[in-house]
Amino acid sequence: MKRLFGVSLLVILGGFVFGVEQKSEIDLTLVRKAVEAANQIFVDASLRGDSAAVGALLTDDTFLLPPAGRMVQGKNATEEYWRTTWTQLKILDFKMTIQSLYGAGDLAYEVGNYILKFQVQGKEGMDEGKYVVVWKQMADKTWKKLVDIWNSDLPTQ
Amino acid sequence: MKRLFGVSLLVILGGFVFGVEQKSEIDLTLVRKAVEAANQIFVDASLRGDSAAVGALLTDDTFLLPPAGRMVQGKNATEEYWRTTWTQLKILDFKMTIQSLYGAGDLAYEVGNYILKFQVQGKEGMDEGKYVVVWKQMADKTWKKLVDIWNSDLPTQ
Repeated sequence: MKRLFGVSLLVILGGFVFGVEQKSEIDLTLVRKAVEAANQIFVDASLRGDSAAVGALLTDDTFLLPPAGRMVQGKNATEEYWRTTWTQLKILDFKMTIQSLYGAGDLAYEVGNYILKFQVQGKEGMDEGKYVVVWKQMADKTWKKLVDIWNSDLPTQ
Repeated sequence: MKRLFGVSLLVILGGFVFGVEQKSEIDLTLVRKAVEAANQIFVDASLRGDSAAVGALLTDDTFLLPPAGRMVQGKNATEEYWRTTWTQLKILDFKMTIQSLYGAGDLAYEVGNYILKFQVQGKEGMDEGKYVVVWKQMADKTWKKLVDIWNSDLPTQ
């Protein structure tokens, strides 16, 4: 009986150790799928000028760091930033390419490139550059943007 | 004897569980200290124009994402970027302020603001903006830059 108890203890504690180890690991294939799906939602929202659709990708304490402007904090302020931007700037084409993705625990980051065609005041323009997004896995297992920053590859004029 | 064995097993496995749990946690106070020390090294290196000193903060697969230029990959290419930049641009004053720091496992990210005074071709200029650095804790427990990206708050001219 004591022996049985010892074995049970080993199995139970062994399972606990295994469970804890699992928790600290991260499946980057799953993260990549989630990030690719979220990026597609962002690209589609950009093309439609639909700032409300971006809200689903954000946490309440998200940081948006756009070039040529102050840091924007929070979901509502970030939606408002995109609403204002897409009112002035019609996005004609937008492509994001992931260059690097890595994570630990509930945190992941993405480094990528973008290429963008737009229309502003009747004129067409383009931009290409790079971005970093920091992602956080929420309690419901979805990945949301904690930080979004980008800058252009093109020389300043 | 069997009882003693059972207790020992509990202590040993309990210790292992505790050890694994510790590993997945992160002490943000310690990370902040490491990041502040690393930022001071970067600020001092900027003021001296000492690109070699920046190398100590980098991993071999670091990403540098400077505005108005292509993504730079690797320690050597990043040191070379700073060497070229600081040859053209003399840094007169440079301050970094951490706005947010969060981490999980061996990964942390920092959101901050910078303010910069410089001299280029005999003329003084200034810039202020924001940055994101992704940090990775190495096997020797030091924190190194995996990603460094920034952009200006100032309107493009």
